[in-house]
Amino acid sequence: MATLFNFMSDNAAAPCPEVLAGLAAVAPAQPAGYDGDDCSRRLDALFSDLFGRPCMALPVSTGTAANALALATLVPPWGAIACHTEAHVQVDECGAPEFFTGGAKLLLCPGADGKLTPAGLDAALASHRGDVHQVQLGALTLTQATECGTVYTADEIAALAAHARARGWRLHMDGARFANAVAHLGHGPAALVADLDALSFGCIKNGGLSAEAIVLFDLALADQLRWRRKRAGQMPSKGRFNAAQIIAMVENDVWLRNARTANAGAQHLAQAAGNRLMYPVQANEVFVQLAPGEPQRLRDAGFLFYDWGDAGSNQVRLVVSWDTPADGVEQLARALAGG
Amino acid sequence: MATLFNFMSDNAAAPCPEVLAGLAAVAPAQPAGYDGDDCSRRLDALFSDLFGRPCMALPVSTGTAANALALATLVPPWGAIACHTEAHVQVDECGAPEFFTGGAKLLLCPGADGKLTPAGLDAALASHRGDVHQVQLGALTLTQATECGTVYTADEIAALAAHARARGWRLHMDGARFANAVAHLGHGPAALVADLDALSFGCIKNGGLSAEAIVLFDLALADQLRWRRKRAGQMPSKGRFNAAQIIAMVENDVWLRNARTANAGAQHLAQAAGNRLMYPVQANEVFVQLAPGEPQRLRDAGFLFYDWGDAGSNQVRLVVSWDTPADGVEQLARALAGG
Amino acid sequence: MATLFNFMSDNAAAPCPEVLAGLAAVAPAQPAGYDGDDCSRRLDALFSDLFGRPCMALPVSTGTAANALALATLVPPWGAIACHTEAHVQVDECGAPEFFTGGAKLLLCPGADGKLTPAGLDAALASHRGDVHQVQLGALTLTQATECGTVYTADEIAALAAHARARGWRLHMDGARFANAVAHLGHGPAALVADLDALSFGCIKNGGLSAEAIVLFDLALADQLRWRRKRAGQMPSKGRFNAAQIIAMVENDVWLRNARTANAGAQHLAQAAGNRLMYPVQANEVFVQLAPGEPQRLRDAGFLFYDWGDAGSNQVRLVVSWDTPADGVEQLARALAGG
Amino acid sequence: MATLFNFMSDNAAAPCPEVLAGLAAVAPAQPAGYDGDDCSRRLDALFSDLFGRPCMALPVSTGTAANALALATLVPPWGAIACHTEAHVQVDECGAPEFFTGGAKLLLCPGADGKLTPAGLDAALASHRGDVHQVQLGALTLTQATECGTVYTADEIAALAAHARARGWRLHMDGARFANAVAHLGHGPAALVADLDALSFGCIKNGGLSAEAIVLFDLALADQLRWRRKRAGQMPSKGRFNAAQIIAMVENDVWLRNARTANAGAQHLAQAAGNRLMYPVQANEVFVQLAPGEPQRLRDAGFLFYDWGDAGSNQVRLVVSWDTPADGVEQLARALAGG
Repeated sequence: MATLFNFMSDNAAAPCPEVLAGLAAVAPAQPAGYDGDDCSRRLDALFSDLFGRPCMALPVSTGTAANALALATLVPPWGAIACHTEAHVQVDECGAPEFFTGGAKLLLCPGADGKLTPAGLDAALASHRGDVHQVQLGALTLTQATECGTVYTADEIAALAAHARARGWRLHMDGARFANAVAHLGHGPAALVADLDALSFGCIKNGGLSAEAIVLFDLALADQLRWRRKRAGQMPSKGRFNAAQIIAMVENDVWLRNARTANAGAQHLAQAAGNRLMYPVQANEVFVQLAPGEPQRLRDAGFLFYDWGDAGSNQVRLVVSWDTPADGVEQLARALAGG
Repeated sequence: MATLFNFMSDNAAAPCPEVLAGLAAVAPAQPAGYDGDDCSRRLDALFSDLFGRPCMALPVSTGTAANALALATLVPPWGAIACHTEAHVQVDECGAPEFFTGGAKLLLCPGADGKLTPAGLDAALASHRGDVHQVQLGALTLTQATECGTVYTADEIAALAAHARARGWRLHMDGARFANAVAHLGHGPAALVADLDALSFGCIKNGGLSAEAIVLFDLALADQLRWRRKRAGQMPSKGRFNAAQIIAMVENDVWLRNARTANAGAQHLAQAAGNRLMYPVQANEVFVQLAPGEPQRLRDAGFLFYDWGDAGSNQVRLVVSWDTPADGVEQLARALAGG
Repeated sequence: MATLFNFMSDNAAAPCPEVLAGLAAVAPAQPAGYDGDDCSRRLDALFSDLFGRPCMALPVSTGTAANALALATLVPPWGAIACHTEAHVQVDECGAPEFFTGGAKLLLCPGADGKLTPAGLDAALASHRGDVHQVQLGALTLTQATECGTVYTADEIAALAAHARARGWRLHMDGARFANAVAHLGHGPAALVADLDALSFGCIKNGGLSAEAIVLFDLALADQLRWRRKRAGQMPSKGRFNAAQIIAMVENDVWLRNARTANAGAQHLAQAAGNRLMYPVQANEVFVQLAPGEPQRLRDAGFLFYDWGDAGSNQVRLVVSWDTPADGVEQLARALAGG
Repeated sequence: MATLFNFMSDNAAAPCPEVLAGLAAVAPAQPAGYDGDDCSRRLDALFSDLFGRPCMALPVSTGTAANALALATLVPPWGAIACHTEAHVQVDECGAPEFFTGGAKLLLCPGADGKLTPAGLDAALASHRGDVHQVQLGALTLTQATECGTVYTADEIAALAAHARARGWRLHMDGARFANAVAHLGHGPAALVADLDALSFGCIKNGGLSAEAIVLFDLALADQLRWRRKRAGQMPSKGRFNAAQIIAMVENDVWLRNARTANAGAQHLAQAAGNRLMYPVQANEVFVQLAPGEPQRLRDAGFLFYDWGDAGSNQVRLVVSWDTPADGVEQLARALAGG
């Protein structure tokens, strides 16, 4: 049996050393529980510095909780949230947005390469009247990097934000792979969050352990988010452990270092896949249209990954993590190139 | 300034070495995310062995989440849950039970020393008709150890369980300090959970870090609980870290060792407090009726703790954690004895 | 068998002639459905005139819907609503306030004769800290007339309103028997609603058929209430029939005429009951402490009514409706006086 | 100005004489409120006879309430409901299904002429995995007659029911225009409801006033539906008025008589519209592709109706009610034929 190389998901990767060190550093007993410790109290300033905007940052235990709490803070129960047809909030969260919002509706909008555009939103929502018999469009949520492994540029986000603002919509970003997007774009994150009301800042897929951060830019909603978080069972009594993980990721640009490593691995695979790529590779996910029999051949060679798309389509998703062995990437690249 | 000794809460204690070691052991990347790892898959058997009953155990990130998810699995939105007037689910969870159940109602029942009795339930609920115009009583939840630091005996629980069963109610236990109760009683936990439908098994206050377990005994509800947990943002992608903490607590009776240490410290304080105790001390919390001026005198001496009861009542709560320095306990005991 | 005289509830009374005439008048087809008809469009002005304050009035199909929708508009899901221990919203609505608010909590406050007082609220809520671990007190709801058949004076309401305002709470009134209260007080309704954010204006018990009105005084919440009402299935497509009933009740003071008739009947019974009255009789409900055997004797004589209080207490509730035959009231008064 | 003929909606039609007579008959005071009166107690037997299956029937005040309560009884909060892309529950109920279910998700499935098919469901739901990360498909809801004015045959319903049953889904029918469908098909309703778990039986559009009926065929859910209805503010205290309307519609086949009249008017328009019909006309709605300028010309001639489809498409919807004057239909038919 061949050595197994795992390209299934960044979900099962190791935490990076800085995160583990951060946890260890706050292990000793503290004077205060919940968010009263020194780490928790540093988060707002940390992210305000990082993004160049005043904001509040609250840790939660999953990306699903981050997205659902953020959206619930932005839209009322009778609200509607425009999102991409393939968005994680629609497809992979077991209805968490509906639960947390009290029954808001996601309105699905298609878009090439996993990306929404103002024109695409207009087309998809053209028949939505918005009278009292309908849910009220109140937010737009973008995934950055997208579910197709592509990345919105700052200009694209600005255009979508202008579109949203003109309609009175709030703007949320599901940043489960925000680090990969920033690493790809090569400039600081400020331009990507300048128009956001809330960001789900992902850590776990990128070398974190058990904490994501909700970054809230509309500080008028801060108390509401705190109450919602407590009420959702997302305010841990030893909050310092979540905060310490997040600090470890952000300090010294560890989040960007990890993301660059993963992205580079994905680029290596992308070059090997050549014109069989289904989407541009801009983050750490590579979607490939393989030939019949090829998925099985790769699995026989020891590579693990998910099938994608319709059954029998021979489409696959290959995810590179910050800790995927370079040797594994190299071997898979060779196998793809020779496929 | 005197050295500070912290008796505010077990919420801010350190994780115990076994928990930290458990975390470190699962740090390397794993083949499977979510609950697919080896640790997560061991939990059901671990708790079935511990309790001598088949059960399912699912980690969550807080005690509030454990309680609210368990109760939502046991009662419908139009249900009512009988609980003690001082129950954590009523007083300290920002309405999480109402949120997770979809609006069930807590019916408050008083009881001496924080404990419910069948007669007390009958009296408190006598006027509840239960017709279609009212919520439907569907569950009883007990806190073990109670909010007053007392412990239900196995016989007391059996009597309450018989009372509940005769009325078709489900039985839940908020076991945030379940370990302290078991340590106090001195016999195994099986008799305490024999009649339960679900238990919130607390770890965090007792030397854990960031994971509690919901133990579900009615396995017909297992799928429902899994969906509810995912939907609540309580299914982490790196589930092994939660599972490993819980395993570390249960294996080798670490949970009981930690609880015995904390309980012993509380007993030491109890003896010093003598007839000023507000309730019997049976776990790790000591409630004391101090004299005017005494709370301030203790604070001046370097002890940290919460006031309790009405403002100006000079009642205080002293909580001993598994890691409270013996020296601190000794000094506080002396200060109390000399009070 | 004796003729039956029904003192069980004003819930089963006939609609008054004006209401039936109002329905008939709008039977012919109309140009517009929902709230687009002429009757529906008159409601805001009708109630603004009646109360001397700008307001919006929306019909709903039950008092439960009126209360629950109003409260949901006033408090968020993490909110708490102070109410009397015996309030209809707590005791008789199967958890509707929890459902409509998304899980807010009712905090129960006792009070003599069914009435709350500022001091009573302070005492009952003294232990409510209101930190992030608790629901946030956001509204006070009063029942006028109360569940004990008593009536708040304008001064009492003003004192409670000042108490609420000082704490940032919203003020709601469950006016299922508001007409009886106004009829009792003998002055116009303006002083009773001057401080309200919302009123459930009852019609059905007072000679209506199937419509109550939510009167909203905080017009900033108007759109929210409209959306909530639609979403709750309370926006009928032939809205004119609800509006016409309400107009028929308010025009020409029909509501007060009906209420005065019912109140007068209750006064007649009250005089007969003498010192056996449990509460002052100020509206159309009479609560009497009977002697053992007396309830059965009255039933044998053909009177229908509910037992009240604990089983075997011989306490009964006698409700007089606008259409209770004078002969029936007279006979019951004689039976009581001779009891 | 021309006489106005209103083809906007059946929502604003008059109640038919039998309904008004039914209301008048129950106007006198009754011994019992809520559902305790004689009319309310007849409903179960009435519908069981009508449909040849045991069932429970509960009145509610709107079609939105009927649909949302029925769906909430059939699927849990983490459930998903397959429905047509154009379904009223998705498009016109302001998220009521999400509110009443506690956040279930509607999964949208296209289908020609407003109708779903097994193959269409398979295609639309092919990518729904149904693992723990996704909502759980639990119900299918059909609209009969459809939003396009077409009618499912008994065979089509049976095929969809078999498809649903094979997947463990519940089956609901939104029968806001069920009468029109039955009138079109020309056979009794039994075959159309044989596989249903619940039916929203529409009256209001078909000559009713303010009551629809939820007909529940799975009697194991009866108590749940009763509690949900009360909690939703849909259990009126003078329930006899709702029940009497429904009885008046069903007795003597008034519902079918009204629907036949409306359908016949629609057929008249359909013949006039000829090959400009957008969908087969099988109920009382006629969708027509007009020529540029023609909508305005018809309006200038005194006809009222809604534009349909995209702005500028010259598509219109013409609805005939049970009470639309024959003269108006005739004039519109002539105008269409000459168009």
